[in-house]
Amino acid sequence: MVEGKINEIHGWAAKKPGIKVEPWSYKPRPIGPNDVEIEIQYSGICGSDLHTIKDEWQGTSYPAIVGHEIVGRVITKGEKVSEFSEGDIVGVGAQVYACLRNDCEACSNDLDPHCPKMVPTYNGKYADGEQSQGGYASAVRVDANYVFKIPPSISPEHAAPLFCAATTVAAPMLRKGVKKGDRVGVVGIGGLGHLALQYARALGAEVYAFSHSPNKKQQCLELGASKFVLTSDKEELKNAHHMLDYLLVTSSSKANQYNEFISWMRYQGVVVILALPEGHMQFSPFEFVLNEVGITGSLIGGHRIIEKVLEMAVEHNIRPIIEKYPIDQVNEALKHMDDGKARYRIVLTH
Amino acid sequence: MVEGKINEIHGWAAKKPGIKVEPWSYKPRPIGPNDVEIEIQYSGICGSDLHTIKDEWQGTSYPAIVGHEIVGRVITKGEKVSEFSEGDIVGVGAQVYACLRNDCEACSNDLDPHCPKMVPTYNGKYADGEQSQGGYASAVRVDANYVFKIPPSISPEHAAPLFCAATTVAAPMLRKGVKKGDRVGVVGIGGLGHLALQYARALGAEVYAFSHSPNKKQQCLELGASKFVLTSDKEELKNAHHMLDYLLVTSSSKANQYNEFISWMRYQGVVVILALPEGHMQFSPFEFVLNEVGITGSLIGGHRIIEKVLEMAVEHNIRPIIEKYPIDQVNEALKHMDDGKARYRIVLTH
Repeated sequence: MVEGKINEIHGWAAKKPGIKVEPWSYKPRPIGPNDVEIEIQYSGICGSDLHTIKDEWQGTSYPAIVGHEIVGRVITKGEKVSEFSEGDIVGVGAQVYACLRNDCEACSNDLDPHCPKMVPTYNGKYADGEQSQGGYASAVRVDANYVFKIPPSISPEHAAPLFCAATTVAAPMLRKGVKKGDRVGVVGIGGLGHLALQYARALGAEVYAFSHSPNKKQQCLELGASKFVLTSDKEELKNAHHMLDYLLVTSSSKANQYNEFISWMRYQGVVVILALPEGHMQFSPFEFVLNEVGITGSLIGGHRIIEKVLEMAVEHNIRPIIEKYPIDQVNEALKHMDDGKARYRIVLTH
Repeated sequence: MVEGKINEIHGWAAKKPGIKVEPWSYKPRPIGPNDVEIEIQYSGICGSDLHTIKDEWQGTSYPAIVGHEIVGRVITKGEKVSEFSEGDIVGVGAQVYACLRNDCEACSNDLDPHCPKMVPTYNGKYADGEQSQGGYASAVRVDANYVFKIPPSISPEHAAPLFCAATTVAAPMLRKGVKKGDRVGVVGIGGLGHLALQYARALGAEVYAFSHSPNKKQQCLELGASKFVLTSDKEELKNAHHMLDYLLVTSSSKANQYNEFISWMRYQGVVVILALPEGHMQFSPFEFVLNEVGITGSLIGGHRIIEKVLEMAVEHNIRPIIEKYPIDQVNEALKHMDDGKARYRIVLTH
């Protein structure tokens, strides 16, 4: 049994529902033969972190250290881990365990986020009952199958948001096989959306950015959009009708008009919901059925998707646009994010 | 210019919204070089016929002769028609024209039902402004691309419902590539549903029939279902959770519980809506997004789908279960259908 180097992990935990985390330490779980101990250097802030600390999805078990866009340095590895060396710069996304067995229906179909033994990076339960704790902390110990080397051409702070934000937007495009000539729309130009534009473009799509902020236009065009559609302009919206093969909805705004989204789709186009709206989704079935439009949701990406996301980032020079906050200003950073002011992803520096 | 053999087509037309058709005649359109004149022998009754004569979808132009499951005998053909001979027994479905050009985005992608020049079999408009009239009539003149030979092993009266009911249910399964081992559910065991069970089975799927009528169980099992799920039985419903790759919803009942349907789906399963519900569709986004379930609509099938449907009917001995009514009892037949009593498809004999 390998001993870890860190006896106590110091983190920032939410202790009750709200937008506040505070210093809290926990004793790390033992390092199993396939585990890696990582000293954390950077941690991205994801929308899920806010939902979890506020307990908006219910089920948060406090104290909870969130953060699932983790980048750091390997400091210890279990005896069976051959693919990493101490000192490697690596990342961890929203999942830290799946069985990955051939006889697992989910894992054998590249659906490892749906493995019955799946453990999310935080607020999850390991088989031994222990709660998983995330990246707003000094270190983490996780299964090596969910640890990925950061390619040397990507700076570690820019790598962090690739592990959740980029993976989440790329997953449905990769699974559905978005290809050259397809038209992909992105609703909501934020942490997820600004990466969706880049990945869609990298896959060869003609990209439409939809936003209610006219001042995001220039940046959208630079990030890969061929067209910017201002959603407050009725004429521009009309021109978007029947144009898209795929639409990635990265906003969960109450103002979202799902009927309007459907009207932008070509026959057999697919609307992918990436952000959970509150309350019920509602739409008129008529145009949806007549135009054979599909609506689907997508959650996170499995380990193969993460590998592909990193490869594509290198090949197509895809990078998140980030704002950095020292981790001792994590509460200011969370508020900035919650206010919708992040441009476009916040990365905590440890 | 070829002259037709019939100078006046005698049909049964709706003249105003309601479940009533009455004798009415019209002068047939000229026979173009690629047209075929068919003396109608059988005409199936489709749910769309009822929606149209009642004007439930708005836009019915009266007088309207409905019927788009047409089988009859070729009596005249245009000078460019080489694939049919006089006397051939042929069928016509829900569409009588598309451009089928290589430079048409819809037609070149096998989406001919969405061709901008598409003409539906009835209550549609030809390019010359004339209204298309359907199969509750003595004859019809249509483009040969939408006329299909009835294979000799299929009796003409059993062939009729293949042109709309069977095509409608088979289209999404063929497009999505339902294959051996997939689990396909069918909600609503009626005109469409009883054919969906057979086509799903023919494609190798494990088939689940969902119905609130316990007395349909035996027939569902005979038609290809491996499991019959009584929707009023909560225990049976619970066993259906997370079981299906595809669900074909052939019922537009107000009692349809779309959230319940979603709960029957495996990860990345697809719910296909084949019957337009009234009002809005509404569901909770949570399970739908977390399980990455897709919801889509499907309309009719293009000409290649119809050919495949006929081939499969021969190869797998698929036949509709029909009730026959003489065409002069068409109003009784429409009422029987509207009352939900048809078992399972009505075919009018001319």
